[in-house]
Amino acid sequence: MFITLEGIDRAGKTTQAARLAAALGPRTLLLREPGGTPAGERIRGLIKDPELELDPVAELLLFNAARAQLLAEVVEPALREGRDVVCDRFIDSTAAYQGVARGLGLERVERLTELVVGTTTPDLTLLLRVDPERAFYRQTEIDDRFEAEGVEFQRRVAAAYDDLARRHADRIVVVDGEGEPDEVHRRIIEVVDERR
Amino acid sequence: MFITLEGIDRAGKTTQAARLAAALGPRTLLLREPGGTPAGERIRGLIKDPELELDPVAELLLFNAARAQLLAEVVEPALREGRDVVCDRFIDSTAAYQGVARGLGLERVERLTELVVGTTTPDLTLLLRVDPERAFYRQTEIDDRFEAEGVEFQRRVAAAYDDLARRHADRIVVVDGEGEPDEVHRRIIEVVDERR
Repeated sequence: MFITLEGIDRAGKTTQAARLAAALGPRTLLLREPGGTPAGERIRGLIKDPELELDPVAELLLFNAARAQLLAEVVEPALREGRDVVCDRFIDSTAAYQGVARGLGLERVERLTELVVGTTTPDLTLLLRVDPERAFYRQTEIDDRFEAEGVEFQRRVAAAYDDLARRHADRIVVVDGEGEPDEVHRRIIEVVDERR
Repeated sequence: MFITLEGIDRAGKTTQAARLAAALGPRTLLLREPGGTPAGERIRGLIKDPELELDPVAELLLFNAARAQLLAEVVEPALREGRDVVCDRFIDSTAAYQGVARGLGLERVERLTELVVGTTTPDLTLLLRVDPERAFYRQTEIDDRFEAEGVEFQRRVAAAYDDLARRHADRIVVVDGEGEPDEVHRRIIEVVDERR
């Protein structure tokens, strides 16, 4: 199975992705976007470089370049070997952040994603839903450009994710991300078990 | 006017782009792809890095990321100010090299280009046609990945360019690139004068 985790910053995606991967067994591959390959890490560095003023379309294409590399080099070989793959952020992050919150247009972003991903769409996407306010003020440091944009931006991203969950109801399952990590993990395992 | 120069490696594009820009006057902007902006130069470095094994789709997206940056940061502002822009390689290079010669599919590449370029298509594209054999053996050093692929690859690129010239006959004009640079320059000026 190819499972992705989505949600706003500080929704608990990274923690829950790691716990899910551990629960699925030792052959499970745990990945994060953007990055995950030598070329992808270089692209990630470019995207996160505060010295570079990136045009929004250029940024969108860089995210997708890292993604294409990750798919070809890592995800597709793993799936062919019958391994499970858990990915912390994937195509819906691009749709929510670049497409909606940054205003590039959801359709434009989804048409591009289609060109890049082809048939390797996730079998299941877990959308961790948390209160944008609470998530924002929970943070202890502002560690990248997205998070520097403030709580209003996080609210727009949260609304975009809700809309995506309605548009792709066959693939995206909303999981309540509030509460203790153990509790959230149990909710996730329940959803995954139903789909296996 | 936004004018692009295209053709196989060693067709004389760089020389002729510089001469054309000079002939158009001091306000003309001379550019090359990929590159031309700080972000674009970083992306260029990534594409040309022999240490990185780039997936062909990732490479395609990187070229287009550099292009989006160049359009937003340089080309569109210059055209708005009424300046002429001459660019050494542009969308048809991607179509010929990645789309056809590397086999990603011309339609896929052209759909992506459309998403990136929008309405900023060249007013005129000069395709410098030279004999692939002669151009290949004229070189004194193999200076990058494309040129390392040999004369057979250059022949495929040349055929792809001829096909593009037929598909976009309203925009692409084939210019005989054989002979002395002065002679080729005169042919180019003739075409440009007709279009102004």
